Amino acid sequence: MVNVAIIGVGTVGQSVAKILEDNKTLISARAGKEINVVKGAVRDLSKKRNTTIALTDNIDEVLSDDSIDIVVELMGGVDEPFKVVKKALTNGKAVVTANKALLAYHRYDLQEIAGALPIGYEASVAGGIPIINALKVGLSANQIMSIKGIMNGTCNYMLTKMSQEGVSFDAILKEAQELGYAEADPTFDIGGFDAAHKLLILASIAYGIDAKPEDILIEGIENINGHDIEFAKEFGYSIKLLAIAKKSGNNIELRVHPVLIKESQMIAKIDGVMNGVSVIGDFVGETLYYGAGAGGDATASAVVSDIVEIVRAGQSSPMLGFKKPHESQILKLISTDEIESEYYLRMRVQDKSGVLATIAQICADNEISLETILQKTTDDKNIAMLLCATHLCKEKQIKQAISEIEALEALEDKVSMIRIEE
Amino acid sequence: MVNVAIIGVGTVGQSVAKILEDNKTLISARAGKEINVVKGAVRDLSKKRNTTIALTDNIDEVLSDDSIDIVVELMGGVDEPFKVVKKALTNGKAVVTANKALLAYHRYDLQEIAGALPIGYEASVAGGIPIINALKVGLSANQIMSIKGIMNGTCNYMLTKMSQEGVSFDAILKEAQELGYAEADPTFDIGGFDAAHKLLILASIAYGIDAKPEDILIEGIENINGHDIEFAKEFGYSIKLLAIAKKSGNNIELRVHPVLIKESQMIAKIDGVMNGVSVIGDFVGETLYYGAGAGGDATASAVVSDIVEIVRAGQSSPMLGFKKPHESQILKLISTDEIESEYYLRMRVQDKSGVLATIAQICADNEISLETILQKTTDDKNIAMLLCATHLCKEKQIKQAISEIEALEALEDKVSMIRIEE
Repeated sequence: MVNVAIIGVGTVGQSVAKILEDNKTLISARAGKEINVVKGAVRDLSKKRNTTIALTDNIDEVLSDDSIDIVVELMGGVDEPFKVVKKALTNGKAVVTANKALLAYHRYDLQEIAGALPIGYEASVAGGIPIINALKVGLSANQIMSIKGIMNGTCNYMLTKMSQEGVSFDAILKEAQELGYAEADPTFDIGGFDAAHKLLILASIAYGIDAKPEDILIEGIENINGHDIEFAKEFGYSIKLLAIAKKSGNNIELRVHPVLIKESQMIAKIDGVMNGVSVIGDFVGETLYYGAGAGGDATASAVVSDIVEIVRAGQSSPMLGFKKPHESQILKLISTDEIESEYYLRMRVQDKSGVLATIAQICADNEISLETILQKTTDDKNIAMLLCATHLCKEKQIKQAISEIEALEALEDKVSMIRIEE
Repeated sequence: MVNVAIIGVGTVGQSVAKILEDNKTLISARAGKEINVVKGAVRDLSKKRNTTIALTDNIDEVLSDDSIDIVVELMGGVDEPFKVVKKALTNGKAVVTANKALLAYHRYDLQEIAGALPIGYEASVAGGIPIINALKVGLSANQIMSIKGIMNGTCNYMLTKMSQEGVSFDAILKEAQELGYAEADPTFDIGGFDAAHKLLILASIAYGIDAKPEDILIEGIENINGHDIEFAKEFGYSIKLLAIAKKSGNNIELRVHPVLIKESQMIAKIDGVMNGVSVIGDFVGETLYYGAGAGGDATASAVVSDIVEIVRAGQSSPMLGFKKPHESQILKLISTDEIESEYYLRMRVQDKSGVLATIAQICADNEISLETILQKTTDDKNIAMLLCATHLCKEKQIKQAISEIEALEALEDKVSMIRIEE
């Protein structure tokens, strides 16, 4: 018999308890032992919860309870759960967490503190999709050439609706909030930070890279508008918020931002709140993993799979797949400036002669060659919309060009930029 | 240091050796130990091979070599590899196999013989896609409600081409053979047997069901023609060869056959030689796994991931995820006759009055209600093509109706039937 305690009994925690109860016989047969949730710790005991777990507001009591084998951390936040998980490990307990923010900052600390104790974190990335396990075990033969993930359901829902129904960003954000797909303060999701946390976790398993959110390029979907959606459709692209890890030589790129991506690619076909991660390995080629990236039951499914695996096997390998630093190669996170991409730019300009030529000259001066330029009329006859796509250039070149373009008097607005992912 | 021997050094075996060599440092870092391929056993030493492995034609010598830790079985066939794997296990060696036919017949025998010794078989289903691991570990919290897999690249390539380019079955088979996507004798692939072997392996992990190929419904794609493709397009369907496992209550359906499936479903979007498996769990909902289902490198990627996992962890759980018989429930494989589906029928009939009415009456007599009937002209003005889709009925009802229809004098040909998967 294995005893589990849950710290933080919200939607996911209640669902973990429900799964272990509803599928008790099946899970016992798979795990080889009976698994029981014996305690839950919460901050506020007076809150209404739909659960039969015995609750306490004394976390320390739970963490020092010798009868507890596995502590499931579902508190949210960074500092407080870090203390809790440290204490659980110090007291010899296995840990399962769904906390991506905790791992984005402290995964290597935790791996070190854990030593031989197992830490499961399948639920921290892409909810119910077993992507951690796929990367750590299923693809272990491969150099990971790239990871491209749609890992934020809120953004994907909004972009899908904008594209399929022509709804405006603001209207769809409001709808997503009403449906519970977006938070009252949506910055963490639509700003790309949630996806960035998940990307950092995957990058550790693939590359042993110890980067933090502030080390990488993160842009959200706030500036996408109807013109971009139209341009995308016209040229056979979808617009997606992708979290991207790419290896070239010993350089690793990590970045989260909206992209234009060809509709024919599998990952471009993932719509609505669903998540998906495409991984290219040097021998296996592309594999893709698709499923529900959020929601209490899907996330809890991943939490319980970690519990089952700990009961079956204990820790089968270092938490992050291999030890830090990466023992086989010195891999270097490349600076944002050196990232190469093709770019799409949208500019509102005064509709007078010479503007287009000046902008083209700025691009040329920065050694950026243009693939497509479209000029469109707007409601205001004095204002034109310029849409253009570049060939490959570096981030620092496009940034420089954009700042020079934005300094032009003819510019009515900031330049809006989306990277094109081939 | 871990020593590996490969029995059967063909395309996959050579690729296994190449991966372990090319990615040696990386794989050592992940596995925690150096892994070396020290021997290969082959039937015919005179065959040309692109490998530096020391080869022998004395399999027994390899199997009794005390320096070998892991035996990789890549021979093909059933009886001979069963003997080889048994002997390897009896001699205390861990085993990795890519042999789906061996597992379709002997997986429970092997699980019993192995005891605590690890057997890896990720490569046996869907090549490089880590679907075994996903089912065994990632989804272990769930009752598996259904598995639907496109697990034969040959069939999917042919159906995709027929649909996208209007090529005939015979022409595309010839092309597939020339491209190396189909064998000289393609029966094993296009008859559905290859997919059936894979389905049986997945069904064991999901349900603990010990069925053999002869226990389940297996139909191939031989009878699909242009009329079916056209009908599918007209009604928004794709035609795919699906391997299906479905749970309803304690009944399990296992079947492999072509289906009409709505184009909007994720699995319907998997085209060409690619494979994909959709799994629905009671808590996680749908997850889908996509990638290369065949080819030396993709298959070898899965073989090597098993080797790495054995080196890391040993056997972390019973080979098939849980012991036979399923300990939590008595699950029953339902007989083919009791399977329920909607059906599409194609009939070449003499174009004279009363034929359609007679066929409709036969359906009514068998309590089959029709959803759609289309009559199309053919090149021969005396012959009409009838295409119809039914509502839900049982396999035994449709079989009975088809045999009665085929007994009609007006029938020019056998009735062609495809199940509709909703």
